[in-house]
Amino acid sequence: MSDHVYKKIELTGSSKTSVEDAIQNAIAAAAKSLQHLDWFEVLEVRGDISNGAVDHYQVSLKVGFRLND
Amino acid sequence: MSDHVYKKIELTGSSKTSVEDAIQNAIAAAAKSLQHLDWFEVLEVRGDISNGAVDHYQVSLKVGFRLND
Amino acid sequence: MSDHVYKKIELTGSSKTSVEDAIQNAIAAAAKSLQHLDWFEVLEVRGDISNGAVDHYQVSLKVGFRLND
Amino acid sequence: MSDHVYKKIELTGSSKTSVEDAIQNAIAAAAKSLQHLDWFEVLEVRGDISNGAVDHYQVSLKVGFRLND
Amino acid sequence: MSDHVYKKIELTGSSKTSVEDAIQNAIAAAAKSLQHLDWFEVLEVRGDISNGAVDHYQVSLKVGFRLND
Amino acid sequence: MSDHVYKKIELTGSSKTSVEDAIQNAIAAAAKSLQHLDWFEVLEVRGDISNGAVDHYQVSLKVGFRLND
Amino acid sequence: MSDHVYKKIELTGSSKTSVEDAIQNAIAAAAKSLQHLDWFEVLEVRGDISNGAVDHYQVSLKVGFRLND
Amino acid sequence: MSDHVYKKIELTGSSKTSVEDAIQNAIAAAAKSLQHLDWFEVLEVRGDISNGAVDHYQVSLKVGFRLND
Amino acid sequence: MSDHVYKKIELTGSSKTSVEDAIQNAIAAAAKSLQHLDWFEVLEVRGDISNGAVDHYQVSLKVGFRLND
Amino acid sequence: MSDHVYKKIELTGSSKTSVEDAIQNAIAAAAKSLQHLDWFEVLEVRGDISNGAVDHYQVSLKVGFRLND
Amino acid sequence: MSDHVYKKIELTGSSKTSVEDAIQNAIAAAAKSLQHLDWFEVLEVRGDISNGAVDHYQVSLKVGFRLND
Amino acid sequence: MSDHVYKKIELTGSSKTSVEDAIQNAIAAAAKSLQHLDWFEVLEVRGDISNGAVDHYQVSLKVGFRLND
Repeated sequence: MSDHVYKKIELTGSSKTSVEDAIQNAIAAAAKSLQHLDWFEVLEVRGDISNGAVDHYQVSLKVGFRLND
Repeated sequence: MSDHVYKKIELTGSSKTSVEDAIQNAIAAAAKSLQHLDWFEVLEVRGDISNGAVDHYQVSLKVGFRLND
Repeated sequence: MSDHVYKKIELTGSSKTSVEDAIQNAIAAAAKSLQHLDWFEVLEVRGDISNGAVDHYQVSLKVGFRLND
Repeated sequence: MSDHVYKKIELTGSSKTSVEDAIQNAIAAAAKSLQHLDWFEVLEVRGDISNGAVDHYQVSLKVGFRLND
Repeated sequence: MSDHVYKKIELTGSSKTSVEDAIQNAIAAAAKSLQHLDWFEVLEVRGDISNGAVDHYQVSLKVGFRLND
Repeated sequence: MSDHVYKKIELTGSSKTSVEDAIQNAIAAAAKSLQHLDWFEVLEVRGDISNGAVDHYQVSLKVGFRLND
Repeated sequence: MSDHVYKKIELTGSSKTSVEDAIQNAIAAAAKSLQHLDWFEVLEVRGDISNGAVDHYQVSLKVGFRLND
Repeated sequence: MSDHVYKKIELTGSSKTSVEDAIQNAIAAAAKSLQHLDWFEVLEVRGDISNGAVDHYQVSLKVGFRLND
Repeated sequence: MSDHVYKKIELTGSSKTSVEDAIQNAIAAAAKSLQHLDWFEVLEVRGDISNGAVDHYQVSLKVGFRLND
Repeated sequence: MSDHVYKKIELTGSSKTSVEDAIQNAIAAAAKSLQHLDWFEVLEVRGDISNGAVDHYQVSLKVGFRLND
Repeated sequence: MSDHVYKKIELTGSSKTSVEDAIQNAIAAAAKSLQHLDWFEVLEVRGDISNGAVDHYQVSLKVGFRLND
Repeated sequence: MSDHVYKKIELTGSSKTSVEDAIQNAIAAAAKSLQHLDWFEVLEVRGDISNGAVDHYQVSLKVGFRLND
């Protein structure tokens, strides 16, 4: 990493099944328009409830990617 | 949400299988006595260890629900 | 817990499949050299990305164990 | 305050006009069922956007009240 | 703890003598109406001053208790 | 929110009159180039002083918006 | 700001009408004895309740001022 | 508190016997030069060790006092 | 301290009587196997409740000690 | 600053020589595509180790810039 | 430190060359009017940018000094 | 990093010249007894003052290293 500069963006992904799936969805969306995605950091896990059960998970994360030279 | 007031309570659910299951258990317990459960926010993930492996996960979360009019 | 003193160490485990699996890997590694592992507390969830998807999860946790008398 | 025990609950009030109005709405709702409301502490200010403008403010606060003897 | 759901409430106890006494007062007040009190976590220590000396300590704490099945 | 991915950006708006007006100014600026603005979260309130009075408020906030499909 | 040293002090102002008015009151009090007040940072918003409504707002803030050369 | 402005200063008191005694020492020192001391908030408890035992406690606290009119 | 390197470890001590006693117990346990213990920092105070009263205090602290040359 | 809206982005710069150099590298990279860079705030300092010495420093910072009118 | 009471003040120093130089400038300014300066704690590192490069560093720190007996 | 478990320890290094030098001193001390040192994270920068100037910097950091297989 010694020669590069990285940018971090903050995303919120969601999923009806798991925290990991919500992370994957957010990263997949970022990968559509950004190259060189390198790492992520989870900031917050929350979600919506309906009928007394989890309806979906919402995971906010920072995604770091290398800036193009 | 513009006309309502919400209350948040803090719960700790547990599960031998996953973080998501511990969340579901806490919400299911809250749903027995409270209506209008709306969202949750994970505060802390911890757990007990026995015999060198996770025995169960303990997830603390805030649960928000709409106050009755 | 009233008569004991506990020590906490900080570990980072990783897994290609889930947050829970990364926790288990860290605890299993600690159990090789330490007895009386008692509880864990998750500090941070992050991970590496390759080809626009999660490559592996990295979970940092504190592990508490009872000091030998 | 020297002889009393206080309980704090967490509420989220909302308002289309101001942060102060959202606080007042939350406290007014609490006052319907609780006596001896004594103080509040603002935890978070957020809100919903529609058509490129604030639709309403949402203010989370702790409200402290003296427990009945 | 593996099969239970716990609720945490936030209390502020006070005492003219010590931090520990303020904690005991808050827990004693909670025990009047709640069963299965299990643990507490200190959140904040503050107090009032009069005549250039501590008049009383105010200790805010979370108290966790098991929900009835 | 269950099928979408959201991005959050951080803005600082300012106003000579109020905290709410500074929030509105930041959101209005974001709405010029971004669609689907959905919510905001206040991070910090500060401001400049001149002649012993508030000259203007500066409010930093995160603004969340839905990514285009 | 490049050649100066600044000091920050912490104040709590109050007002029956608004958060902004409490900020102004604190700054006006500081301006009576200090010159070169330059900026403020809000640390905490709380207040007292009486008769089920906000009695007054209390806003804690840091105020920065340039030290005299 | 509705008409006043308060200032907070940060002090560190110490004591060989207890946390409470360290708080009292800090407040007593402040009372020598300041009037209208009103409340304190504990920020940090630490201390020095010598010969494998606590030598003295060091308690950092904010002390709030009303500004003279 | 200018020529040394220090290591900090995290311990949890407990006591049925006071916060200070729990700190002393943790430090005494550390002193059995470590030399040059120099200072401690309290991280968390919590405890267990039984029969509606504090059963014992649990205090987590960092203990710093000088590394041997 | 009273009439403008600012955006903050988060960058990570690196350098083999110093924290300041890592900050400069991140800002220089941002300046290639953004105008009106105005201030930065350091969020985190970390780095990689190789052969028992610092290989390079990694500094994460927020960079604020004025939005074009 | 066992018999003394310390006060901490918060300062912001600046420098065009380095973080360390900004710290030194703040401490030198404090030393003009205060005796017994004992230690400092860095709170925040930020700075101003001009022409796409750091113009100067701004370092906020707490400075602790012993109160006169 | 996908197959390994890492441990983090906390160290405080010091230096009369710079923050970077204090970091290097801490890492060099750790490298005497530990292999596979991989990264560090700065937690706190503070220092001692004598004669109105910085006497030495003290930097606390976490150092992560791979556990032996």
